Parts: sequence; structure tokens; C-alpha cells
Amino acid sequence: MAALGEFALIRQYFAAAACAAPRPGVALGIGDDCALLHLPPGERLAVSTDTQVAGVHFPHDPDPFLLAQRSLAAAASDLAAMGAAPLGFTLALTLPAAEPAWLEAFARGLDVMARACRLSLIGGDTTRGPLNINVTVFGSLPAGQALLRSGARPGDLLCIGGPTGEAAAALPLVLGARAAVGAGDAQLLARYWTPQPQLALGQALRGLASAALDVSDGLLADCGHIAAASGVRLVVEAPRLPLSAALRAAAGDQALTLALSGGDDYVLAFTLAPHAVSALQVAGVPFHIVGRVETGSGVALHDGAGRDITPASSGYQHFGGADGQA
Amino acid sequence: MAALGEFALIRQYFAAAACAAPRPGVALGIGDDCALLHLPPGERLAVSTDTQVAGVHFPHDPDPFLLAQRSLAAAASDLAAMGAAPLGFTLALTLPAAEPAWLEAFARGLDVMARACRLSLIGGDTTRGPLNINVTVFGSLPAGQALLRSGARPGDLLCIGGPTGEAAAALPLVLGARAAVGAGDAQLLARYWTPQPQLALGQALRGLASAALDVSDGLLADCGHIAAASGVRLVVEAPRLPLSAALRAAAGDQALTLALSGGDDYVLAFTLAPHAVSALQVAGVPFHIVGRVETGSGVALHDGAGRDITPASSGYQHFGGADGQA
Repeated sequence: MAALGEFALIRQYFAAAACAAPRPGVALGIGDDCALLHLPPGERLAVSTDTQVAGVHFPHDPDPFLLAQRSLAAAASDLAAMGAAPLGFTLALTLPAAEPAWLEAFARGLDVMARACRLSLIGGDTTRGPLNINVTVFGSLPAGQALLRSGARPGDLLCIGGPTGEAAAALPLVLGARAAVGAGDAQLLARYWTPQPQLALGQALRGLASAALDVSDGLLADCGHIAAASGVRLVVEAPRLPLSAALRAAAGDQALTLALSGGDDYVLAFTLAPHAVSALQVAGVPFHIVGRVETGSGVALHDGAGRDITPASSGYQHFGGADGQA
Repeated sequence: MAALGEFALIRQYFAAAACAAPRPGVALGIGDDCALLHLPPGERLAVSTDTQVAGVHFPHDPDPFLLAQRSLAAAASDLAAMGAAPLGFTLALTLPAAEPAWLEAFARGLDVMARACRLSLIGGDTTRGPLNINVTVFGSLPAGQALLRSGARPGDLLCIGGPTGEAAAALPLVLGARAAVGAGDAQLLARYWTPQPQLALGQALRGLASAALDVSDGLLADCGHIAAASGVRLVVEAPRLPLSAALRAAAGDQALTLALSGGDDYVLAFTLAPHAVSALQVAGVPFHIVGRVETGSGVALHDGAGRDITPASSGYQHFGGADGQA
């Protein structure tokens, strides 16, 4: 790594990502002590930072092309959850050695996801050490229109932006405990390695959703975050959850459990007044109504007949580890 | 760490830093999917990210109270180098275990440096893994007034904001190769562990300096960055370099070498038209004129009689390792 020297690494391998979909809000990109961002009057800058560590968020020795996509997507999902329009990101990459093939594949993956998310690489830092990937993302949104976790009101509907559980169902494949077979397993692996942040959905929810977040710790756990921040009770109606064919095929009778508690889904969960449903349908973004907001606290799971079937444990602490985001 | 659960860690230990010196530009701090920053019209947001890794930027098992200060200061120094006013920062902390005493001391150190720099903690992420500290800092400055590396012109003076070499002279103390004795060694250790980002100097340089950066790789190496970005030659006049008594006492005849190539100084180096010197003196900020800008390329070191004494190697790759910042 020393042979490449200061600056050379990130410039050489990440030039493509730095040029991908340059955003008008980036006044100065890579190359000086700081990047400079411009915000139109009345806009707010949304910021979130996310770290991915080998053995915690992904297995050791993953495919760098996929790892880069997953790392950027996980961070960008927080912009979606806030309703922010994507702007740029910084990459702080700690890696044990500078292997050109690894870096080239990682940079390609970064470029793919940066283009998909319309995010420009605006700065970074590369350091030698145990593999650690930190991405800090930046977006913009009009003042007063951020999707917070705290606005859910009794009477609102609980919605999700897509099926959950598929990333968790991919874990045996990711860990090599089972070989991937067919299109269903390919779909699960794609959901794990290349989740697609729901940025369009998040922006469509501005002025419509009363609360939102992205599901990363498992649907029930994340619904608990909305319930706590809003001072309400969320009821998930189990029969309303979309369980994909790929999930059902891979997980069998554990499909519902994974959809409720699996984690790493990176779809949005949000609450919505009933009168806002038609406006959201007009916007043409995908969503599923999976429950409702009541007075009270916590999260309940109901069967089709309104009976409480809340599992004893709804928490999830990521792939083999634990972390916390503030 | 799992026992503390999602959110609990960073909230519990870093609440003080989150509250330290709240800035008017922080519209929403810790607790949702993103933080929200507000910029007055005409201002730009300056962003820089910096990672510190055990065994590369600091020895294994350092004092967490000092480590936190050093990590935040190293990142904040990039805001100073840009002339930005401090706003906030995110902390992505990867650590092997959640030891309350360690976290408490780290949070106290973070709080001390956050207050000194007038930076608010606006978000973060805590993850289990090998110790890795990433700080992303945010500042603001009027459009068009950022201190870039690219504006140095022949005829300008080369200046630094304080003595260099002390942090490098502290390394034998930091590594335990020598025991600290007296006030001089204490000064060296303070320079290493608790550098003070020159934020006031950076802001005073707006509209005066033609180029600036912070010295982190060693004075000659960083002067090389200005020379390359500006397309000029920088001449450092060795007898003009301020060599502190503490540095001289600790480093003996290596004092000049450390001042030129030591690294980790976190003082500003900048270029200035001669007519701007008096305005900067009026501003009351400390600086030393140590050389000049000429046509040409690269960096030369001259003795008192104008003779070239440029050392064969002027590069430096940090404490035992290598990294690169973009």
C-alpha cells in the first residue's frame, strides 16, 4: 500500500464513482482538505453515517464488487427513510492490503450503486487495517418535509415499501451453508448483496407519510422505533405481509418469522393517514398496507382474526453481531 | 455489547458531546435516520472524513480519553484548513467490546475536544469489530471563500501556524520507548494526543491566504501538495522554521528533520501575498513566515544563504503505516 502513496489509491480506483452522476449540489469534490456542498435556499442537508465490518455485517472475504454495493446501499437507505434527494457520499475505507484486483472490483461495485442512487463520491480516506467500510451519505430536502419517526398518529395505516425477510433468508447462502439453486435463491442473494434503497418512494412520501424509517433491524424491531418515537402502538397484521415466493421456497415455515424479524431488508416502513393512500397510489410507487397505528405503546402482531400472536422475541442484532445507530 | 442494544450505546455515552456547544446550523441531531443541517443563504457546507486505526495512527490500547480528542482534532483540522466555521460531526465507532469505563473515558475526551472546537455530535454508528474511529466533520463558509490548495502564486510568502515536529518527537514517549520527563515531554505528548485545530486561524485567512492546508504528513510533503495543486515551487527556508525548546531537547540534532518531515502536526501551512501580512497581523492570530513561492514545481529546502539542502526523502507515511486522504 505504501507503494501507491498518499492520494493515489482512492483517486486511481474511485475516479469513476467520483464522476458518476455528478450532482449540482457538489460545489467541490475530491482533492482538497474538504469537499464543499451547496444547498438551494430553503433546503436542509440530510446526513447519515454507516459502518460495515467483516464478520458483523458480512462474512469474511466477500466479493468486493458486491460488498461495495451493499455498503453504499445500506447508507443510502437512510436518505430514503428521511425523504431526502440523494446528493453525495464520503467513503472511509480501511483495508488490510492494497490489492489492485480487489480495489478495482470494489470501485466498480461502488460505481454501480452510486449511479443507481444518483450519489457522487465527494471525498474519502483510505487506511491500512482490518477491513472496515464507512460511508457517510448526504441528501437534501425542503425544510419541514423530513420524514421523522415521531409523527405516527392513532388511526394511521402502517405500510412497507416491499417484502421483508429475503435478506435474512439469503444468510445460509451468503455463509456457504447451502448452495444457491435457481432464480429464487438468486433473488435472495441479490436482496442481501445489492439492496435497492427506496429513494423514489421516500421522496414521494414527503407531505404524505406521518412517520418513516428504513427496515434494517427487522420489521417488528423497527416498528418499535416508530412506536417509541411517536408514543403510539403499532399493530402488524400477519396475513397482510407480502411473503415472496423465493422467501417461502427457501425458508418454509420460517418465512413469516424472517419477514418479521430478519433484518437487512432496506425497505421503508411508514405510517400514513387513510386519506393519503390514494395520493400515494397516484404517485406510482410500490407499497403494502400491513397494519395500523393505535393508542398505546409497543408493537403487536395480530393474526387474521385480530388475535394477538406477538412473538416473545422480536429483536435482531444483525449478522452474528451487534451494533447501534444513532 | 448486545446487552446494551440498538441506540443505547451511543446515546448513553455520547449524550454530553451531542449537547456540547449546540450550533444554530444543526436542525436535527441524533435519533432519527439522518441528522439535518441548515446553511444560511450563500454559505457552503465543508465536509471531511478521517479514520484513525490502532497500530497505524496510534498505538494499540491507548488512553481512550486522549484517543477521542486526537481523533476529533485530526478531522476538525481539515475544517480549519478550508477556512470553515465548525458546525458538527458524526462518529462511526468500531470497537471490540463495550467496556463502560472505556466508553465513558472516550465520551469525556470527545466532549472536551467538541467543546474546544465548537462542534456538535449530530449522528453516529457503533459497531463491534477491531478498533476503528471514523469522524466526519461539517463546517460552513461563505461561497467563494474556501481556502483551496490551488491558489499559491509566485511571489507569495509561505507561512505556518505554529511549530512543527513536536508530535513526531513525542513518538518514543507514545510508544513507551522512553519515559516522559518534565514539562517539555508533557508538551510533546499534548501535541501528539490533543492537537488543537487552528480553526480561528483558518477563518482569519479567508480572503487573505492564496492557498492553505493542514500539515499532517510532514511539512515538506504537504508543501508538495500545495506546489502540485497550484503549479508552483515552494521554497522552505530552514533557519526560519520555529523549533520549540521541547522539540530541541527531545530530538537533539534530529529536530530540524522532525520539523520538516515528522507528520501529525495539525498546524496550518498557507501562502500569502506580501501585502496581506499586515492584515493578518492585525487579526491577532499566530503565524510564522518560513519561505516563499516561486515559479517551477516541487519543494526546495534552503539554508540561510539560499543554498539548496533539500533532503533525499521528504515523504512520511504516518505512524508505522500508510494511508491516503482524498
